[in-house]
Amino acid sequence: MSETTRPVAAIVLAAGKGTRMKSELHKVLHPIAGRPMLEHLLASVATLDPVHTVVVAGHGREQIAAAVGERAQIVVQEPQLGTGHAVQQAQAALGDFDGDVLVLYGDVPFVASSTMQRMLDRLSDNDAPAAVVLAFRATDPGAYGRVISVDGKTILKMVEYKDASEDERKVDLCNSGMMACRAADLFVLLARVGNDNAAGEYYLPDIVKVASHDGRKSKFIETHESEVRGINSRSELATAERQWQEFRREEAMAEGASLIAPETVFFSWDTRLGRDVTIEPNVVFGPGVTVADGATIHAFCHLEGCEVGKGVSVGPFARLRPGAKLGEGSKIGNFVEIKNAVMGEGAKANHLSYIGDAEVGAGANIGAGTITCNYDGYFKHKTVIGAGAFIGSNSALIAPVKIGADAIVGAGSAVSRDVAPGELRMVRAEQLVKPGWADRFHDAMKKKKAEAKKG
Amino acid sequence: MSETTRPVAAIVLAAGKGTRMKSELHKVLHPIAGRPMLEHLLASVATLDPVHTVVVAGHGREQIAAAVGERAQIVVQEPQLGTGHAVQQAQAALGDFDGDVLVLYGDVPFVASSTMQRMLDRLSDNDAPAAVVLAFRATDPGAYGRVISVDGKTILKMVEYKDASEDERKVDLCNSGMMACRAADLFVLLARVGNDNAAGEYYLPDIVKVASHDGRKSKFIETHESEVRGINSRSELATAERQWQEFRREEAMAEGASLIAPETVFFSWDTRLGRDVTIEPNVVFGPGVTVADGATIHAFCHLEGCEVGKGVSVGPFARLRPGAKLGEGSKIGNFVEIKNAVMGEGAKANHLSYIGDAEVGAGANIGAGTITCNYDGYFKHKTVIGAGAFIGSNSALIAPVKIGADAIVGAGSAVSRDVAPGELRMVRAEQLVKPGWADRFHDAMKKKKAEAKKG
Amino acid sequence: MSETTRPVAAIVLAAGKGTRMKSELHKVLHPIAGRPMLEHLLASVATLDPVHTVVVAGHGREQIAAAVGERAQIVVQEPQLGTGHAVQQAQAALGDFDGDVLVLYGDVPFVASSTMQRMLDRLSDNDAPAAVVLAFRATDPGAYGRVISVDGKTILKMVEYKDASEDERKVDLCNSGMMACRAADLFVLLARVGNDNAAGEYYLPDIVKVASHDGRKSKFIETHESEVRGINSRSELATAERQWQEFRREEAMAEGASLIAPETVFFSWDTRLGRDVTIEPNVVFGPGVTVADGATIHAFCHLEGCEVGKGVSVGPFARLRPGAKLGEGSKIGNFVEIKNAVMGEGAKANHLSYIGDAEVGAGANIGAGTITCNYDGYFKHKTVIGAGAFIGSNSALIAPVKIGADAIVGAGSAVSRDVAPGELRMVRAEQLVKPGWADRFHDAMKKKKAEAKKG
Repeated sequence: MSETTRPVAAIVLAAGKGTRMKSELHKVLHPIAGRPMLEHLLASVATLDPVHTVVVAGHGREQIAAAVGERAQIVVQEPQLGTGHAVQQAQAALGDFDGDVLVLYGDVPFVASSTMQRMLDRLSDNDAPAAVVLAFRATDPGAYGRVISVDGKTILKMVEYKDASEDERKVDLCNSGMMACRAADLFVLLARVGNDNAAGEYYLPDIVKVASHDGRKSKFIETHESEVRGINSRSELATAERQWQEFRREEAMAEGASLIAPETVFFSWDTRLGRDVTIEPNVVFGPGVTVADGATIHAFCHLEGCEVGKGVSVGPFARLRPGAKLGEGSKIGNFVEIKNAVMGEGAKANHLSYIGDAEVGAGANIGAGTITCNYDGYFKHKTVIGAGAFIGSNSALIAPVKIGADAIVGAGSAVSRDVAPGELRMVRAEQLVKPGWADRFHDAMKKKKAEAKKG
Repeated sequence: MSETTRPVAAIVLAAGKGTRMKSELHKVLHPIAGRPMLEHLLASVATLDPVHTVVVAGHGREQIAAAVGERAQIVVQEPQLGTGHAVQQAQAALGDFDGDVLVLYGDVPFVASSTMQRMLDRLSDNDAPAAVVLAFRATDPGAYGRVISVDGKTILKMVEYKDASEDERKVDLCNSGMMACRAADLFVLLARVGNDNAAGEYYLPDIVKVASHDGRKSKFIETHESEVRGINSRSELATAERQWQEFRREEAMAEGASLIAPETVFFSWDTRLGRDVTIEPNVVFGPGVTVADGATIHAFCHLEGCEVGKGVSVGPFARLRPGAKLGEGSKIGNFVEIKNAVMGEGAKANHLSYIGDAEVGAGANIGAGTITCNYDGYFKHKTVIGAGAFIGSNSALIAPVKIGADAIVGAGSAVSRDVAPGELRMVRAEQLVKPGWADRFHDAMKKKKAEAKKG
Repeated sequence: MSETTRPVAAIVLAAGKGTRMKSELHKVLHPIAGRPMLEHLLASVATLDPVHTVVVAGHGREQIAAAVGERAQIVVQEPQLGTGHAVQQAQAALGDFDGDVLVLYGDVPFVASSTMQRMLDRLSDNDAPAAVVLAFRATDPGAYGRVISVDGKTILKMVEYKDASEDERKVDLCNSGMMACRAADLFVLLARVGNDNAAGEYYLPDIVKVASHDGRKSKFIETHESEVRGINSRSELATAERQWQEFRREEAMAEGASLIAPETVFFSWDTRLGRDVTIEPNVVFGPGVTVADGATIHAFCHLEGCEVGKGVSVGPFARLRPGAKLGEGSKIGNFVEIKNAVMGEGAKANHLSYIGDAEVGAGANIGAGTITCNYDGYFKHKTVIGAGAFIGSNSALIAPVKIGADAIVGAGSAVSRDVAPGELRMVRAEQLVKPGWADRFHDAMKKKKAEAKKG
């Protein structure tokens, strides 16, 4: 077996209706770890540097085209006459390509690129197999098609469950449906595949039989069942999500993060964690989060599109939204939302605040209940807070506005004009004092309440 | 076996002390999925349209009576001399009823009404069995009483574990204690049941033996062990809750909702979900929630007694309380509480707000930190916000108050008088400016702090 | 076997590098249930009233010394030449101690004190064993050293896996490494242990062999595998945390607390719960929390260092921080943070508030969005709110400040001066009214927005 150096093309089948999902969204676009399953697969495919990546779509092809963008060509299979027929629809898109072709499934998103490479490698065996099948050992082989082999790599026979003998049914080596084949072979063989079966469909694996008629061998490689499990319902989607998360949590711990209760932490496909990061129970990561060394994400936090600096403390009950950048040693406390805002080193926003479209200087202290009023109903505006500034509690900073370094804003102020460095700004209204008024009010209301009860 | 058309009565035994619960609350009133376990059972019973439903109570009968209301008669068993004795206490309540009687247990809440119907159907067998026992196959039969049968429906013998032969102990068919019996038979047979046993109690299942003395057969039907599992401790309560939730989550996914992490979503017994609803991790549903098609409930949300419209986005970190009605496409963001309030189509309250006793018009925008001041310590008052209105951040709307359509309330305003449509209302106090004051304050305080450390 | 009355010393080995943790924090200081694993072990040791407790440290000994304080002597093992060598480093610290010595491991934190006592008891057997080994039955014995015995208490032979015969490898009784030994024997035997092995290390268990040369028997006691499982990676740390939590949850339920979803509740090592406490899903306890009878902790709460009184309702979405004391029947609602503050009987803070460094009188009502401004950037100040006072929504109470009994603070007020009992205090600024302004603004901005899109 030698490393393949031949050019590669990938054909991804995604024309199925996905009826069991009961969804307006195409099955292969349902997300796992925050990323559509098709994109997980395309990302693995991309590591092989394919010359062509073709997605065969049917129902909902517009959704797929929009999601895939430039990363793949979309071809249409209409009507849908089986997997062999689906692959044929990709022939034109491959043009005069004469390398190796991988056939994959959009709803089997976690086939590793190393597995794909093993398929290609086997296809390069000196005896030039006609096709390489991706096989797996099934815990419960049930009605899967069986792969019959005696030497652990050459296919003697592929047999549908219903046509299998009793002995063949005892075999637990099953056909995943995924294959590798030289382009020069693939379409020639497919053209000879018939549809003489109950469904009247053209099946891709039948190329093994056709090649066998010509005296050409096909081979297989074996992988874990979990890698080739298809996703056909929301329950299977949830299972795939759980497996992904379990794998990622173990990886995070192995790399030096403490997860107090791993089963309550939900990563995104692209979460990056430093060393000695502590993640308390119930933390959810959306896409695009980086957490630096020594940071602590306390319980009940939601992070998305943000950078958490070294030694930062987040939460409990904090929400970091896209564009939040937390400088080293800064602190974001409970019921605080940060959006598109930079917190300088050691800056703090500990309680009940909304900091949006802002720059907060190093060491600044944002009091409880502070709101940056960044939106006028039409446009977003920016708040700039200088280093060492102190924003009193319950203040509203009406953007665009600048608070100078070391300035103080008095509690309860609505600040709409810039505050100079070192300045005190307070917005103070008349303190209306009515001695005894509350006592009289209590008396009157108690009477009214009593009457209301009678009435 | 023919569908029964005879009238039905249900006797629910609930006189046990429930000591292992260690609770002031009666055992059968402990909730599962937000509903007392007794009510789960009574709801299933009600589908049979029973002529009488009698709950036999002992300790804590006042609690049971208060919970049950008009849905059942309460009779008292005092002292408590066994299940047979308990059933006898219900005789008077049944009056001259002469249909079929089901005997059920208040702490076995998840017996399906289809199972009850199967018991009644078997009781209608042409050979008129004296009684029908609800039996189950136990994974670990342990000390359960065994049901001995050769034909899969007729009881040869019921035997207590301690009296069972070695062969009988190998039988895994066990007696759940639940029975169906004609009223005409039940009390006659019970009157002949003795209490010659270690506990000196009258056991209901002994009617099988008594009937057998007369040469009358009894029969059984079989159901799953999980359906007849009694709840005697808080740990068993938690297990029952988990099983209920697991079942409901699978059902929700099968019906077309995406649960990213099903094991973190907690439904109420009456939660209703539309299609293509997405529920992120950590969402808790209290009773009375309806979620329409295409809505997303983000992570960390708590919903109760509310209607979430089509395509609505809730959370993360949102709390919807009873009376919240969210119009199509509206948006409730983080750290926002909505209580008894209608949000119009496309209205938004994205950050740190409390909207209570309010009507918010279509497309209105509620700024961060907005509070509807709905309570004066004695009465609740209403806030009405017109379509397209813009409430600036950190505003207090002091109810009763109306904000007109398209009106703007300036940030940081406490609004106590109505605002006309299209009007701008700002509450603006004097901006007190003290240049350099903050710098002097910092100097003084740093000195003071340094002295405090020395001291 | 007789209860030992001899004095006890404990030697805790903690010199390992803990490389697999990938952490700056010493392995034995990683927390489980909010408490460093070493402290769990030292707490168990302390119940034996040891004369000496010696921790043998290597890497990171400063961290250990700081954590352990007065509770143990720290001795240094440098270089690290095996467990026997480690124990020898403790000899000087024991001085002329001549009682019984327990050798334990800092990364095996959950050995029960009853197990330690059983080791000491066996050491007091009349035939004076040279050493007592703590053994366990392994589900998968793998490469553990085996303990060979015929009578269930006397060690015939201890054998390393690599030296074991096929028959010996079939034995599932394994050596945990923990031992008890008389001080008079321990160091004499250790001095005769060699390092003729692959690692060139001095192994503590070899004292069994040395004693055997002298014709002295050693013995063992057996415990559960889970009790002696070492923690070497963050994944094993998470597993230990989960086991601890599962045990504690069952205990809490057995004692009369309802946990709706036990798997989502995280206790601290010292959490104390009363009877009929209900804990909804997703609650995290930090250290130092007491919850009294009949209290309900709703979903999504974080509690630390606080006392929750009888019948109190907390959350959902509440955070109680150190020093929070909630009087009987008080109520803390959503998005509320309480820190170092006493809530009187029946007092309420239901929405979006920060109450820090405060005393709140009985029956007082804290309106939504209230902030105690307790910090001036340098010092913390106190807020005192009288019984029956009503703090209007969105108020800022600028500490130090006192609000008298039954006083009313108007919504949206920033109160910086004391309010007398029964007084009404409102801070009211001018209501600036601009009819039609908003309509003109909307027109202008829509135009601007349209232009921005074109541009």
